[in-house]
Amino acid sequence: MKLNKIGEFGFIARFSDKFNDLIKNGQKGIGDDCAVIPKNKNTSFIITTDLLVEDVHFKKEKISAFELGYKSLAVNLSDIAAMGGIANSSFLSVGIPKNTDVEWLDEFISGYQKLSEKYNVPLLGGDTTKSPDMLVINICVVGEIENKKTKYRSGAKNNDIICVTDFLGDSAGGLNVILNNLPDNEDDAKYLLKKHLMPEPEIFAGQWLASQKGVNAMMDVSDGISSDLKHILDASKCAAEINLENIPLSDELKNISEKNNWNIYDISVSGGEDYCLLLTVDKEKFQEIAQNFQTKFNRQLFKIGRIIEGSPEIYFFKNNKNIDLNKKGYNHFK
Amino acid sequence: MKLNKIGEFGFIARFSDKFNDLIKNGQKGIGDDCAVIPKNKNTSFIITTDLLVEDVHFKKEKISAFELGYKSLAVNLSDIAAMGGIANSSFLSVGIPKNTDVEWLDEFISGYQKLSEKYNVPLLGGDTTKSPDMLVINICVVGEIENKKTKYRSGAKNNDIICVTDFLGDSAGGLNVILNNLPDNEDDAKYLLKKHLMPEPEIFAGQWLASQKGVNAMMDVSDGISSDLKHILDASKCAAEINLENIPLSDELKNISEKNNWNIYDISVSGGEDYCLLLTVDKEKFQEIAQNFQTKFNRQLFKIGRIIEGSPEIYFFKNNKNIDLNKKGYNHFK
Repeated sequence: MKLNKIGEFGFIARFSDKFNDLIKNGQKGIGDDCAVIPKNKNTSFIITTDLLVEDVHFKKEKISAFELGYKSLAVNLSDIAAMGGIANSSFLSVGIPKNTDVEWLDEFISGYQKLSEKYNVPLLGGDTTKSPDMLVINICVVGEIENKKTKYRSGAKNNDIICVTDFLGDSAGGLNVILNNLPDNEDDAKYLLKKHLMPEPEIFAGQWLASQKGVNAMMDVSDGISSDLKHILDASKCAAEINLENIPLSDELKNISEKNNWNIYDISVSGGEDYCLLLTVDKEKFQEIAQNFQTKFNRQLFKIGRIIEGSPEIYFFKNNKNIDLNKKGYNHFK
Repeated sequence: MKLNKIGEFGFIARFSDKFNDLIKNGQKGIGDDCAVIPKNKNTSFIITTDLLVEDVHFKKEKISAFELGYKSLAVNLSDIAAMGGIANSSFLSVGIPKNTDVEWLDEFISGYQKLSEKYNVPLLGGDTTKSPDMLVINICVVGEIENKKTKYRSGAKNNDIICVTDFLGDSAGGLNVILNNLPDNEDDAKYLLKKHLMPEPEIFAGQWLASQKGVNAMMDVSDGISSDLKHILDASKCAAEINLENIPLSDELKNISEKNNWNIYDISVSGGEDYCLLLTVDKEKFQEIAQNFQTKFNRQLFKIGRIIEGSPEIYFFKNNKNIDLNKKGYNHFK
């Protein structure tokens, strides 16, 4: 049987249970943004790893070496942010085709270093090797959390408010600019491209949100909320209502979507790589947390829906009308 | 400038210093078998990572899926052994070409699981993704050490005895069997192939040796002692004498080398992937440690030379005659 019959997820599902008996006291494995390894009574190390392969995750002609170095680390730091952690150190493995320019590699490292300095994350190790033709990058980041503050995907509770920390769809809009070869020198396109090529991990917002008692579940938006929120629902055994008119959209994405006749909900709900945070907050505490978030970070915590009872499914509404996105996809908006 | 002008090591050298300012108190980065992250006053976590790329590190038609799964984890556990650590958990990233058989992947995981169970190392996370054509494997292993027992490459002292924990060259002999298409059903070939395809990390010997006060420096043999010992000499700022007649050689390697006219010193001194331990031991304590090692593990701790004063260089002797391997390579023995 070929892998494309069962997909990557089918492969993970086939083996993830086989190691359960080996998991030690306090460790948490596959299923959240990071694995957890106890450090002491009060704190734990958290670990995340991401493999990026040329022509699958990036095309060298569509992203600069500096941006790729920055983004490769950013997507891993975003997983640390999703658990409310502080980044401790990073490990970089690179498989390099023989004809790669050293200047390109230097620029890659400069981008990686830029983000490392911003969040004080030393590169402590790695591996460098040849690769026959594709550039291969694997990054592993170790972070640290206070046990009592850690937020898991499984913590969502009935009636929780579902929020995100940033506009949705900007990164997917930037990808659309690239794929459609739109001019990249106009302000709207520039803004979206930056969000796609150099996403900002929500390390500081993640730490602050994790310290708030009303925050019950948290993760980062990597595949688009229609897919990511499903992970929270699966882990927390509940359902969700999302109000599409409340999805936060940047003016830049609105402008460019209108001009090019893009389906803005398609982009913002199932476009990935936003790397902002998706969280569920106790209904009673939402207003206070949202206000304090605004004061502390000078931006809004966007309420996009609520957790309801039921089997893990997302119900989309627009102006109180139920829209059957799950079955028919995004044709309603076209 | 193309990478092949400066080599991979040149690339690492270009960037490893750039992160020094970010390294936190007690952390140790690039330069040993593992990085070190403090856990508490007495213990630290150690971390190692290895990237394996198809057609660079293995050929799918020359190693079974089970063996590859076993070996991929073994080479990482060997780095944990080299520091005297206990393995805590592993993280596996796989980039999988579309046409890969699911049964092949299942066998790969079975081999990985076999070794995980042997050393009680749970798989706590990872990443699975597509790859355009080559299979890509990145493994990261976290281990734990007692700070006062940790052995670094930099600890070698003048007059230390240089030892290894196993025969040298068996793995390279196995590779020779494969590359020369020798029959693989004879006992000698079978033995060497097993050493090459399923190397055994020296986790238990590493832990015991690390707990011995007379052991001053330790690392694992991954590239052959002529290259690995050089790392100890560089880090410890000393030189070494190696007595070629003391290099431990298996009967199987001797037999097959004689039959096929192989240069046995070439294979045992600069053939890689033995994954036994290379260590330097205080001269006064060597005899006691070697005796206890024999009692505990029912095998010999092999003395192959000694540390001397001087700039980092290895002087090879055979029957008291200096042999200039460094300058002229292995032609002396051909």
